[in-house]
Amino acid sequence: MDPVRLRDLADQLDAELIGDGEIVISGAAGLDHAGAADITFLTRTSLIPKLADCQAAAVIVGFEVEVDRPAIRVKDPYKTFCRLLERMATPLDRVFPPGIHATAVVDPSAEVAPDACLGPYVVVGAGSRVGRRSRLGAHVVLECDSVVGEDSILYPHVVVRERCRLGDRVILHPGCILGADGFGFLPGPAGLTKIPQIGLVVLEDDVELGAGTCVDRATTGITVIGQGTKLDNMVQIGHNVHIGRHSVFCAQTGISGSCEIGNGVTMGGQVGVKDHLKVGNNVQVAAMSGLHKDVPDGATVFGIPAQNAADAMRIVTALNRLPELVRKVRRLEQALGSSTEEEQSP
Amino acid sequence: MDPVRLRDLADQLDAELIGDGEIVISGAAGLDHAGAADITFLTRTSLIPKLADCQAAAVIVGFEVEVDRPAIRVKDPYKTFCRLLERMATPLDRVFPPGIHATAVVDPSAEVAPDACLGPYVVVGAGSRVGRRSRLGAHVVLECDSVVGEDSILYPHVVVRERCRLGDRVILHPGCILGADGFGFLPGPAGLTKIPQIGLVVLEDDVELGAGTCVDRATTGITVIGQGTKLDNMVQIGHNVHIGRHSVFCAQTGISGSCEIGNGVTMGGQVGVKDHLKVGNNVQVAAMSGLHKDVPDGATVFGIPAQNAADAMRIVTALNRLPELVRKVRRLEQALGSSTEEEQSP
Amino acid sequence: MDPVRLRDLADQLDAELIGDGEIVISGAAGLDHAGAADITFLTRTSLIPKLADCQAAAVIVGFEVEVDRPAIRVKDPYKTFCRLLERMATPLDRVFPPGIHATAVVDPSAEVAPDACLGPYVVVGAGSRVGRRSRLGAHVVLECDSVVGEDSILYPHVVVRERCRLGDRVILHPGCILGADGFGFLPGPAGLTKIPQIGLVVLEDDVELGAGTCVDRATTGITVIGQGTKLDNMVQIGHNVHIGRHSVFCAQTGISGSCEIGNGVTMGGQVGVKDHLKVGNNVQVAAMSGLHKDVPDGATVFGIPAQNAADAMRIVTALNRLPELVRKVRRLEQALGSSTEEEQSP
Repeated sequence: MDPVRLRDLADQLDAELIGDGEIVISGAAGLDHAGAADITFLTRTSLIPKLADCQAAAVIVGFEVEVDRPAIRVKDPYKTFCRLLERMATPLDRVFPPGIHATAVVDPSAEVAPDACLGPYVVVGAGSRVGRRSRLGAHVVLECDSVVGEDSILYPHVVVRERCRLGDRVILHPGCILGADGFGFLPGPAGLTKIPQIGLVVLEDDVELGAGTCVDRATTGITVIGQGTKLDNMVQIGHNVHIGRHSVFCAQTGISGSCEIGNGVTMGGQVGVKDHLKVGNNVQVAAMSGLHKDVPDGATVFGIPAQNAADAMRIVTALNRLPELVRKVRRLEQALGSSTEEEQSP
Repeated sequence: MDPVRLRDLADQLDAELIGDGEIVISGAAGLDHAGAADITFLTRTSLIPKLADCQAAAVIVGFEVEVDRPAIRVKDPYKTFCRLLERMATPLDRVFPPGIHATAVVDPSAEVAPDACLGPYVVVGAGSRVGRRSRLGAHVVLECDSVVGEDSILYPHVVVRERCRLGDRVILHPGCILGADGFGFLPGPAGLTKIPQIGLVVLEDDVELGAGTCVDRATTGITVIGQGTKLDNMVQIGHNVHIGRHSVFCAQTGISGSCEIGNGVTMGGQVGVKDHLKVGNNVQVAAMSGLHKDVPDGATVFGIPAQNAADAMRIVTALNRLPELVRKVRRLEQALGSSTEEEQSP
Repeated sequence: MDPVRLRDLADQLDAELIGDGEIVISGAAGLDHAGAADITFLTRTSLIPKLADCQAAAVIVGFEVEVDRPAIRVKDPYKTFCRLLERMATPLDRVFPPGIHATAVVDPSAEVAPDACLGPYVVVGAGSRVGRRSRLGAHVVLECDSVVGEDSILYPHVVVRERCRLGDRVILHPGCILGADGFGFLPGPAGLTKIPQIGLVVLEDDVELGAGTCVDRATTGITVIGQGTKLDNMVQIGHNVHIGRHSVFCAQTGISGSCEIGNGVTMGGQVGVKDHLKVGNNVQVAAMSGLHKDVPDGATVFGIPAQNAADAMRIVTALNRLPELVRKVRRLEQALGSSTEEEQSP
């Protein structure tokens, strides 16, 4: 970021300055790797000892925290740190040079906003539209009749198949694939017959999808991801799934077809969800869980099959005592002198 | 689809007409989202109450089902519905405009059928062949000496590495990767040495692979996927795996190297299969199972490690009673007045 | 490979010749599919019976192994076989024709070594560098300010985002994605706010990443994969993860953010690792395990949640006896005549 005096930074952030305000900060970095020109941050007083080994010129601290060097004091140090990171990001104009690259192939019937950016080798199919200030990185393919809203970013190698609809401020990381056919076949004597997948995919505003994440088109109707929902890398969303607003799924999670997932749902990584389930609002699913039945609003679940967290935790605890339990039962049998051998079925 | 009178539709489908045959149908859609010009379908009489909220102009019903609006009666309503979906699909000529796009890079030694379609920025390497009526979407890369049969569809961003062989009517969804090196290394004092992977990948006729699915090339010999087999998105197939005919694997399943999987096998999502296993014909594997030993023909298995379904179900049921079991054993010990504390090892 | 007399091959490999040295070998293949002009190999005497059905002209055998046909005798037959495979690989110049393809888009400020190879439609962004003899396949995108060392291979459709650093002899299989944003958001009343991810990805020398594998850029600092480490297909590496040297992760494994993984670590497929964990050197993690706490050097673990292998194995064994245990306890209760029914909570 552009170098700034600590005093000026404190002013800009409306924060209390502690110590020498004349030092100059030119970067922000975590406690583990901040350099001598960086500002770092402390979220817990327990981390203060680690500060001794850190070269950072200054620290962002919370109320009532004292440190050994210049600092700025704010209510939420990590949040303030994140605001500084925005200043350090590579400018979008360097990553996506503005304009329509000479090699972009845009169908004459497509509409691309004059201030949109299309990188090298972008393909925009017939009848598609790209909104104002949206940027499509190198090799992005937008098939026919698809729509990208305003201020959206499609990183290199994203593929959007025909008739999908993306809102504003959508971010798709490299290799995302929207609108591939849902997985549906009719069995018959000569094998499997493909069920046409003629629906589409809708991403509402502010959705962000990680690298390699796939959202399949609906059989009929839509597969939809609600406003503000964020999916990590390599997440799989089956056909006709509906996901609500402000939900967060970690990497490699898979949602089978026709599930309805609520708002504010959090899923850890590698979760699997059976088809046609309803998962309520504000549900939390631990990593690697497998959901095989509906989950009510507000529940916290884990395990394969997933249960509410309290029950699942009791089972995990009991499992660790299972080998001992086997031995205990054997001793009880011996103490009782009675055999519990199973009788043969007649 | 092109608008059609219900009477004519019934004729075309050789179905019984019920009610007003003059109404005009211009689409087909599921019960949840059918509009006033659509025909929908009923697979179960239990769904009849949902029909009250559905705007559909008409319904496809089975024998002995009565509904509140015009209908056509057939033996298998869902199958008939799927046939209608075919009429509604975006025409392939719109998704893949015919011809060889001016930007396609085709090696002079490659052979591309005159009626094949190559989209923008397709690359076809030396010695490769593309059969009649096959369509390669934008950015598909077919490396040297590979073969695509007739009537196959490779969606945008598919990569086929050198010397792979694809049959007829193969469908590869966006981002499929065929023929990447198998994962093999020799350990040594200076680290791992790569084992060259010089085999290839064979996809037989009518294979369909989902978005982002990877099939690795064999070390020597072939990795093969049998006729009519369908793999969902992000499935991983290791080197030298042989999969039979008409099998179906759901998303994010992974098959380790050198497995032999039979015909008609069904696997749920996120299944893992250990290397060198044999899985028989018509085996069914539940989602999220982990196979660590061979599975005989016709078995149904689940769990990590996977067991036959009856045993696995007994364990899951017993697991739910495990915390109670721990308490019961404690009470038995108290009732018996004998301690089952383990003796200390000397 | 170029045909060679068995006598000459034995000389080249410094191996003992057994039988007719005049026969000519023109390929190497596994026992299951070797043809009449191939040499195969035997790693175990138990495989000798399978040799009867194999057409191979000759066999590579270990000491004290006698076979029914010409052979060469070496200390490590598989290692010798792998050396032969190198002779059979498709020449790199055929897969990656040398030179800068006319369609490659190279920013004027980028530096590409004169003997590097850029395939069709490669994009090299501003300020990037490609080292000597490195090859970038068709459609590779190297965003601005990234560096590729010498003798590296980036297969078609690899994406490297801005400011990433790749060492020498790195191999990236098709569809690898380096430097996508880490998955980090700040919750707030209006939803989730993106935390800028301004760090980068470092791949040290001799790293190999499988098809579709994703390594996210750090929030600040680096995500690093150590020298000689090999990751299989569709592996997910979160932001700020540090992986040591000569580690091996199988397909579909996912490492959450900020983990520190040691040297010589082996992970099976579909493993999940919770964020911020430390996994020591030479740890072995069985496939489909879920790590939720730190693992010390040299441990072998498995299970969800993962435990040391001995404990985990005892639990798996006991689990199989759990349904029987439930019945045993019921019989003990009956024998004792005492109920262990839980008292109602008041």
